[in-house]
Amino acid sequence: MFPKGFKAGGIHSGIKKKNNVKDLAIFISEFPTSAAAMFTENLVKAAPVLVSQSHMKKTVNRARAIVANSGNANACTGFRGTKDAEGMCSAVAAKLGLPANEVLVASTGVIGQYLPIDKIKKGISSAASALGSDAQSFQAAAQAIMTTDTFVKTAQRTVSFGKKTVTIWGCAKGSGMIHPVLAVPHATMLSFILTDAAISPEILERALHHAVEYSFNCVTVDGDTSTNDTVIALANGAAENPKILNQDRQYHLFTEALSELCLELAKMVAKDGEGATCLVEIDVRNASDEHAARKVASTIATSPLVKTAIFGRDANWGRIIGAAGRAGVPIRPELVDITIGGMPVCRKGLAVNFNESRAKKLLSQKEVKIVVDLHLGRSSASYYTCDFSFDYIKINASYRS
Amino acid sequence: MFPKGFKAGGIHSGIKKKNNVKDLAIFISEFPTSAAAMFTENLVKAAPVLVSQSHMKKTVNRARAIVANSGNANACTGFRGTKDAEGMCSAVAAKLGLPANEVLVASTGVIGQYLPIDKIKKGISSAASALGSDAQSFQAAAQAIMTTDTFVKTAQRTVSFGKKTVTIWGCAKGSGMIHPVLAVPHATMLSFILTDAAISPEILERALHHAVEYSFNCVTVDGDTSTNDTVIALANGAAENPKILNQDRQYHLFTEALSELCLELAKMVAKDGEGATCLVEIDVRNASDEHAARKVASTIATSPLVKTAIFGRDANWGRIIGAAGRAGVPIRPELVDITIGGMPVCRKGLAVNFNESRAKKLLSQKEVKIVVDLHLGRSSASYYTCDFSFDYIKINASYRS
Repeated sequence: MFPKGFKAGGIHSGIKKKNNVKDLAIFISEFPTSAAAMFTENLVKAAPVLVSQSHMKKTVNRARAIVANSGNANACTGFRGTKDAEGMCSAVAAKLGLPANEVLVASTGVIGQYLPIDKIKKGISSAASALGSDAQSFQAAAQAIMTTDTFVKTAQRTVSFGKKTVTIWGCAKGSGMIHPVLAVPHATMLSFILTDAAISPEILERALHHAVEYSFNCVTVDGDTSTNDTVIALANGAAENPKILNQDRQYHLFTEALSELCLELAKMVAKDGEGATCLVEIDVRNASDEHAARKVASTIATSPLVKTAIFGRDANWGRIIGAAGRAGVPIRPELVDITIGGMPVCRKGLAVNFNESRAKKLLSQKEVKIVVDLHLGRSSASYYTCDFSFDYIKINASYRS
Repeated sequence: MFPKGFKAGGIHSGIKKKNNVKDLAIFISEFPTSAAAMFTENLVKAAPVLVSQSHMKKTVNRARAIVANSGNANACTGFRGTKDAEGMCSAVAAKLGLPANEVLVASTGVIGQYLPIDKIKKGISSAASALGSDAQSFQAAAQAIMTTDTFVKTAQRTVSFGKKTVTIWGCAKGSGMIHPVLAVPHATMLSFILTDAAISPEILERALHHAVEYSFNCVTVDGDTSTNDTVIALANGAAENPKILNQDRQYHLFTEALSELCLELAKMVAKDGEGATCLVEIDVRNASDEHAARKVASTIATSPLVKTAIFGRDANWGRIIGAAGRAGVPIRPELVDITIGGMPVCRKGLAVNFNESRAKKLLSQKEVKIVVDLHLGRSSASYYTCDFSFDYIKINASYRS
């Protein structure tokens, strides 16, 4: 089931060389929306990020459509890049009868090259003529934002408010340059979330911040924060629920569903990290405060030594505690317990005798959970990452060419 | 030429399984010394680090000997680890007729396993009987601290003070877990520096801090700071130069030579990073202040995306400016110039048309220099790193087993 009052579409416009590989997506709401968006905190911001930020400001968070391309990031492209990003919005606006300011734009791909704007404008024209509200159309749009992703990432949730059912649908792309700090994600991580909830822009923004903080902002593939990271949520009210205007019970139900959806997408992004063979959850418990829990979790999750050990199915917990020790927050090594896939490997900072072949088996699952208990306080944090494989090197040594 | 009044030796004691692979080194000064040492800032400190710190304190910086082993880090080994590290010092002390407190100890290798202390004590006994002041003995000691290093790292310098010549010799090992923050290095990075200079401990410490700050602390292989990083300098005065007691001209000459030596060793560590095919210098210029210059340089130097692109001989400057933008210090993308091997690839934040095949050639040198000019101020910093290759993954996915 898809949220009411939205249409989507994705096509091949010619940005990517390979025929039939989709590279252009459009989403549109038939009704006015409340919009919320979060963008990369990288100081090098791509043109589409700057243009979308400006549009959000001008409309006071009332976007109607999103246009996104893959294959070219339109980053480090100066004045011409900005003009091209505006051009994409204008083309969508003209075709769909909207003010250009009500269109948001996102790009992902190679940095430092100009967009083939003529191809894109033709593509927008044909895509806009073929938008649909069926599963195929949403799937096509989700496909069109993929770069090195190996599978399409979509998720959905429903929330019941009395007799009204609110639907939330989202798609994401990730793979490399994943370590979102979306004003707070890191990669090029793009995610577009559509919901028919009736909710004010302020409250939607609050819900989105919460959801992103515990999902996309807890995912890392390589620690590189992209110039293009963007998460956009549009809410058009077509579900006709009593409008969510405060942080009331409705808000909490909605935010919970949104957070679950974002976490599902974020885990897919980590699982599909470039070259990844497994999803790794780093679960830090009993830290002195949440900041410390997150720092320790993210330092372990980004450590190349930890990630290569996992690729090698090697229960090398010394690298895990070593990463914890350089996280820049207080830990007491002599208190630290570590389990891998539920099996204790380190207790009070010391080696536990464990069965190496069992460890290998636990590390060979599609999902591996590492728990690091600091025994210092009561705060915890989870980070999601993947292993570091030969294919990560292969993909990234040859990405641009 | 080696510094007067020192002896060294390295042997196979049996920590490493392979026969004839040296794993135990001893250095001794025939005279009392001034000692200076810097240790890892990782909160998880190996037993030898704790023991050496305590010995330095007890003798007020007057160590006479260093014992070091490779193949086992003696980290996360608790009380027994401390006892073993003390045991290594005692064995050397007994054999050489020194107080145990005047022996410093360092270890590198796998974390979380106990030392085979009986083998090591036997090894110390035979090594101590065979110390020499010839080139072979120093070379053997430098070999014995290697782990995944592919070549022996030694360097030397001489400084003339009137008719007296001071000699400084140093060795280092690096390879993985390299990102020294030696109270400041990151890896297991070990370096032992011997000099016959007459210099007070306070002034030697100052000289060492300066030298390390611009050498070992500007090297990164994988961003992982080890539990065991140690740099020790012993100065025994055998050169009979007028003792260096202040930051006078002599001090500056000595510090310059020491800094050059450390930089030479640090570059060798980066060049021999696990799986490395080239040495990469990241030279950040015209930053607003030195902290910013270092942050930008180190962020670029540790970026997996930058390092894999270099391995792919791909002049993907978008990843370089992207890393600069997430360094956490102010930059203005529209001012940034980037050259690779002297060839401009980005000017004022925008693409420069460059010859791709020439770029490939420049990136295929054994040493690659990337200059990032921020055009914001007058501070600069250089970081040394290596590319990220298939072999990095191979080495680290199977290191422990």
